[in-house]
Amino acid sequence: MVDDRPIGIFDSGIGGLTVLKEIHALLPHEELIYLGDTARVPYGGKSKETVLRYTLNNVRFLEAQGVKLVVVACNTASAYALPELLDHDNPPVVGVIEGGVEAAANSNGARIGVIGTEATINSMAYQNAVARLRPGSQVLAKACPMFVPLVEEGWVDNEIALAVAHEYLHEFQGKVDALVLGCTHYPMLKTIISSVLGESTILIDSARETARIVSRTLDRLNIACQPRQNRPRIRFQVTDSPKRSMEVARRMVGQVDIDDAEYVDIT
Amino acid sequence: MVDDRPIGIFDSGIGGLTVLKEIHALLPHEELIYLGDTARVPYGGKSKETVLRYTLNNVRFLEAQGVKLVVVACNTASAYALPELLDHDNPPVVGVIEGGVEAAANSNGARIGVIGTEATINSMAYQNAVARLRPGSQVLAKACPMFVPLVEEGWVDNEIALAVAHEYLHEFQGKVDALVLGCTHYPMLKTIISSVLGESTILIDSARETARIVSRTLDRLNIACQPRQNRPRIRFQVTDSPKRSMEVARRMVGQVDIDDAEYVDIT
Repeated sequence: MVDDRPIGIFDSGIGGLTVLKEIHALLPHEELIYLGDTARVPYGGKSKETVLRYTLNNVRFLEAQGVKLVVVACNTASAYALPELLDHDNPPVVGVIEGGVEAAANSNGARIGVIGTEATINSMAYQNAVARLRPGSQVLAKACPMFVPLVEEGWVDNEIALAVAHEYLHEFQGKVDALVLGCTHYPMLKTIISSVLGESTILIDSARETARIVSRTLDRLNIACQPRQNRPRIRFQVTDSPKRSMEVARRMVGQVDIDDAEYVDIT
Repeated sequence: MVDDRPIGIFDSGIGGLTVLKEIHALLPHEELIYLGDTARVPYGGKSKETVLRYTLNNVRFLEAQGVKLVVVACNTASAYALPELLDHDNPPVVGVIEGGVEAAANSNGARIGVIGTEATINSMAYQNAVARLRPGSQVLAKACPMFVPLVEEGWVDNEIALAVAHEYLHEFQGKVDALVLGCTHYPMLKTIISSVLGESTILIDSARETARIVSRTLDRLNIACQPRQNRPRIRFQVTDSPKRSMEVARRMVGQVDIDDAEYVDIT
């Protein structure tokens, strides 16, 4: 059986395009719809109730477009809403927590660090997933609320970025073997983070692992598409004005050919 | 004639409580309703269309509660939406741009600086208001997107805050006589900003000026309340979970006695 329906991917903003990029690299024949909730971004400082409400709204909107699978490419939404999504009558759903934790659990060291938004860290989703997948390992978790604004300002390699990274992460020095970058923006700060923690700490970017889980899920459910002659369509939808999103998006997806950003009213 | 209806005040978040505090200090008998749109905060990086939609939504919500005047305590919303609000059939509206610019125009120097969110600066609202109120004066404007996250992280007097302020404002050194702090969060960074610009630059906090304009407007429209025996009620409504807002709010309003935060569904 083959299933040519698109895969839906959403994030609170456009950081989740890093996940889209990896999914496209691994599954180049799949049609994709990306939804960035740019009118309500960020989710990271908001309450569980609000994040849940927005997430359900996004999932319903993608569902109405006939997607066969939804990827929650936002760590905060995954952390707060995934259990609820799996409970209800939804399309199959893949989050970004599992992939990062699997990679950390498969790494050599037993001391795992997790960084993310305040909401992600407060949810305990990562800490609980590590305890489940690698019982007995030690978890250090830390919210780093300034990292997203730093990346959005483009300050990823200056003195200020280094000072902020040092402020948040100096307590991890020599204490973690693997660090899960629990927010789509954080991989942009890899160099700075490594310079604080040193080369011996492996940095784990959830995007690639998540793409692998998506591939496994399609196979398991027998809903992968058939190989196509033409490139599949990659749609890019945003809830705020599309003007500014496109420029940042092009930078994030590199060579991947996506449609122009399209405004959608989801509320 | 006296008018005992409440004054409505809204902001994208809770920074606008600094405006509420000044209004209460100047007009202690007026009943107030504060609405913080914490579920959709921040507005500062969003498009004009979206900020306008949210602003109209907030104004309608306050209007439905019978307010006699609306104070737009958010600079971004004032910058983008005030002309539209004044055009339509709304309660009387006061923004926060006018007060800051009036104070700058009345200051001694002719060189005026303005800092704010990206949206506020891009809107040209301040630049146009200065040109109108003080023709011939020179305006330097700069968006400082990292200032809000800094204040929200509580980093208002450390080395990082100083480095960020220096990065944004070093180009203003020796070039502005008065600097309008065009965002409700910025007064928290006054010390750091002064240490970059020096004592000769006057920093203008719009909250107090805005309270004065509110008082003038009530008098002009003949809708001030009568003196009361009991303290007037000050309601505090938020669109996200009220849990975290209350703690920050108490810190911001100091001795002012406001009701506990109440969740409201405005969409």
